[in-house]
Amino acid sequence: MSAYADLMAFQRETEALAQISGRLGWDQETMMPRGAGGQRAEEMAAIEGVLHARRTDPRIGEWLAVVVTGGEVEAANLRHIRRSFERTSKVPARLAAEIARVTSQAQSIWAEARAADDFAAFAPTLREVLSLKREEGAALAADGDVYDAMLDDYEPGATASELSAMFDALRPRLVDLRAAILEKPAPQGLSGEFDEGAQMKLSRMIAKVFGYDMARGRVDKAVHPFSSGSGTDVRITTRTTPSDPFNCIYSTIHEVGHGAYEQNIDPDYLLTPLGAGVSMGVHESQSRIYENQLGRSRAFTGWLYGQMRDAFGDFGIADEDAFFAAVNRVTNGFIRTEADEVQYNLHVLLRYDLERALVARDLEVDDLEAAWNDRFAADFGFAVDKPSNGVLQDVHWSVGLFGYFPTYTLGNVYAGCLHEALRVAVPDLDDQLAQGDTARATGWLCQNVQRHGGLYEPRQVIEMASGAAPSEGPLLSYLEGKFGGIYGL
Amino acid sequence: MSAYADLMAFQRETEALAQISGRLGWDQETMMPRGAGGQRAEEMAAIEGVLHARRTDPRIGEWLAVVVTGGEVEAANLRHIRRSFERTSKVPARLAAEIARVTSQAQSIWAEARAADDFAAFAPTLREVLSLKREEGAALAADGDVYDAMLDDYEPGATASELSAMFDALRPRLVDLRAAILEKPAPQGLSGEFDEGAQMKLSRMIAKVFGYDMARGRVDKAVHPFSSGSGTDVRITTRTTPSDPFNCIYSTIHEVGHGAYEQNIDPDYLLTPLGAGVSMGVHESQSRIYENQLGRSRAFTGWLYGQMRDAFGDFGIADEDAFFAAVNRVTNGFIRTEADEVQYNLHVLLRYDLERALVARDLEVDDLEAAWNDRFAADFGFAVDKPSNGVLQDVHWSVGLFGYFPTYTLGNVYAGCLHEALRVAVPDLDDQLAQGDTARATGWLCQNVQRHGGLYEPRQVIEMASGAAPSEGPLLSYLEGKFGGIYGL
Repeated sequence: MSAYADLMAFQRETEALAQISGRLGWDQETMMPRGAGGQRAEEMAAIEGVLHARRTDPRIGEWLAVVVTGGEVEAANLRHIRRSFERTSKVPARLAAEIARVTSQAQSIWAEARAADDFAAFAPTLREVLSLKREEGAALAADGDVYDAMLDDYEPGATASELSAMFDALRPRLVDLRAAILEKPAPQGLSGEFDEGAQMKLSRMIAKVFGYDMARGRVDKAVHPFSSGSGTDVRITTRTTPSDPFNCIYSTIHEVGHGAYEQNIDPDYLLTPLGAGVSMGVHESQSRIYENQLGRSRAFTGWLYGQMRDAFGDFGIADEDAFFAAVNRVTNGFIRTEADEVQYNLHVLLRYDLERALVARDLEVDDLEAAWNDRFAADFGFAVDKPSNGVLQDVHWSVGLFGYFPTYTLGNVYAGCLHEALRVAVPDLDDQLAQGDTARATGWLCQNVQRHGGLYEPRQVIEMASGAAPSEGPLLSYLEGKFGGIYGL
Repeated sequence: MSAYADLMAFQRETEALAQISGRLGWDQETMMPRGAGGQRAEEMAAIEGVLHARRTDPRIGEWLAVVVTGGEVEAANLRHIRRSFERTSKVPARLAAEIARVTSQAQSIWAEARAADDFAAFAPTLREVLSLKREEGAALAADGDVYDAMLDDYEPGATASELSAMFDALRPRLVDLRAAILEKPAPQGLSGEFDEGAQMKLSRMIAKVFGYDMARGRVDKAVHPFSSGSGTDVRITTRTTPSDPFNCIYSTIHEVGHGAYEQNIDPDYLLTPLGAGVSMGVHESQSRIYENQLGRSRAFTGWLYGQMRDAFGDFGIADEDAFFAAVNRVTNGFIRTEADEVQYNLHVLLRYDLERALVARDLEVDDLEAAWNDRFAADFGFAVDKPSNGVLQDVHWSVGLFGYFPTYTLGNVYAGCLHEALRVAVPDLDDQLAQGDTARATGWLCQNVQRHGGLYEPRQVIEMASGAAPSEGPLLSYLEGKFGGIYGL
């Protein structure tokens, strides 16, 4: 066999094993007996050990040294394999093991500190994680920017300077929009109880409406919704609370966006480096455009209103317009994951600026809580009451995910760009959404984004699909237009 | 580290990976989306490849060559590791790969032949599987008996001569007992429909009654019930059909026997060679004594009758005695897996005698169907009507499981021995069973059999627990006594 064929055969087994690891993660959050945690940790460590050994196998370097580049697909496969192999080669094994050890402990220390609302109990651990991740970032960056090297793990090719340019333009207009909205009377929200079984039934129906293929997936409940797996086995989870069916419905649509992306990748890429979503930002663009630009649109919520009345009877919202306003209600809140479309990115930008400062040593861990609270007050206009509502609310930093947060907002920016292009491509989209028909929209996204998998660089995918370089403009126009309408601004 | 510590650390990771492989098997039968079969086959092949490489890793041989044997547990661990390593070393890699390839195809060829009721369509494949398994058996046996070498995979230490002595004593008395029963009027069976949700609810309750720990396990539905996993993650499956709640209930109790065995092994043995049931025969002894000697006893069925009336209302069985007879109803049937306690072993002995003849070349595959039908008519008194009710009914031979069938009856023989000793140890057992209390019985089995895991050889476990060499006598006395009572023989 040629070096390329040998390399790809080896890679294919690695991808299959990585799918297994992912499936174990799904099982842990959905099916695993509660007493099996200790054993599962050993099982996960064993498969991760196998994966690590394969990903650092010196034969990969030998194959890469002699491989002859072929067509577009071959070149893209090699780009992914080379990037991954070079990354693992740059990080000393001792450091990789130390990061794995420390972050695995740090997560439970963070959870305890959050439960106790005690940032000081978490600070020493965060310092240790940050120090190790800085060391890793420096090894990866060589002479380049450490934070950019961190970003590259989640959004290949993105740089902080490019992101900051977009985010710095976003922030003031979002702060203004938020303030203007909150001066207006809040629309009526939901009240009462909604049967959880009926929520799940409705959510499964909506998942299918958005093109999620149940023959290659399934929907279960989990504490924190997620999607998992690639190719023909892509599973999503959602959650239910009796008082808030929107949580279940929109968690489902969000995860369907992630899941449909994975399901819709060209089947030729199955179990190759191209057979998964290309970056966190592009992934988030799909989950967000499904959830927000489509799922929370006036047209689609009009249809959803009828479905909810069929499922739950009269639930006290008078008409479609009131329902649209209820779905898009903006209220004060501390928690990123519960935030509406307007405020969500302000939560992310706060974290992005703080973590860049931490990495650059412009901010000390000891000063992080105060810096968080100051920034929160500045953007949101009220004070954080306790660390679990502030600096301790997210798991990310405890497990070393520096450089991850900005991909959330980048995903929203990308979703804005894609949505603008989609509206041009499908001018009568609202007529279809109003019938609960997303086929043209999801078909356009499949054709222009999802099917490519890892074939192109993330930014390139968005540019090709939207016909322009990504910018924050379309997202801002969309948000200002939509919420201006709802709130009469 | 010492060679022993190195070896055990390596082994522990292998055991953890084997647990993962088992969990994937469970997932495939319970949760996997139906469109994921092809991808899953690659995933399974990848993890099996990893396991095969570890199990044949030359370092095991090096460690074994220098290891110093310690206490009882260390010696038992080494015995298991040595046996497994020597086995894999004796079988050429080419042959192992060929067996994997052929048996994986053979299963679907068998399924198609069974669906078409066409033995000739399966015969060439069976010849190929048999030939490969004979070659493997010869490699394993060296100068010994090929069939004994096959047996050793499922029941270490057992020999065909020892099994045949027991089985030849069983067969005529079972044939006579069966004939005598079928001359009597059949007791009333169940009729009507039984809600499947209520069946599952009742089954889960009964699983707990038999000591199955839901914190370290779970009960799901599958087409063919099975148990899966060791240690703190032991999952069982059952099935429901509206007309036959006994199928669900007794499948559950059977799998609970397997599952409780795994759950009750000394936790010190977790992820070591001692941390799983010691053999197929001992495993089956636990599933069968739970299902039959306990679950189908007059005392326990008296309690179950009340539970079923609570769950389903009046279902047309007048009293506890009629219910006991209904649970233990003996009727003509072709299918092993649907057979009652009396006839089940006749089905197994038929397969045992035929497969030994096949392996010994005393019977050609072309003559197998006729041989099956002749033997069936001799033992059961009526003719096989079609291959799917005869020679094509079981998957085992298609996947190369020669030497597996006899462990079913050996398990029943072991269950008979254990039950006799249990009755002596717990003289008032029926008083407890009549209250739906199995704690003394399952506690005795845990103490005397289950907790040992792989510490002792299979036969040794049964001898230590029952206080005598295993023999068919107790099983025969139990069956003749119980069914003689029900049928007034």
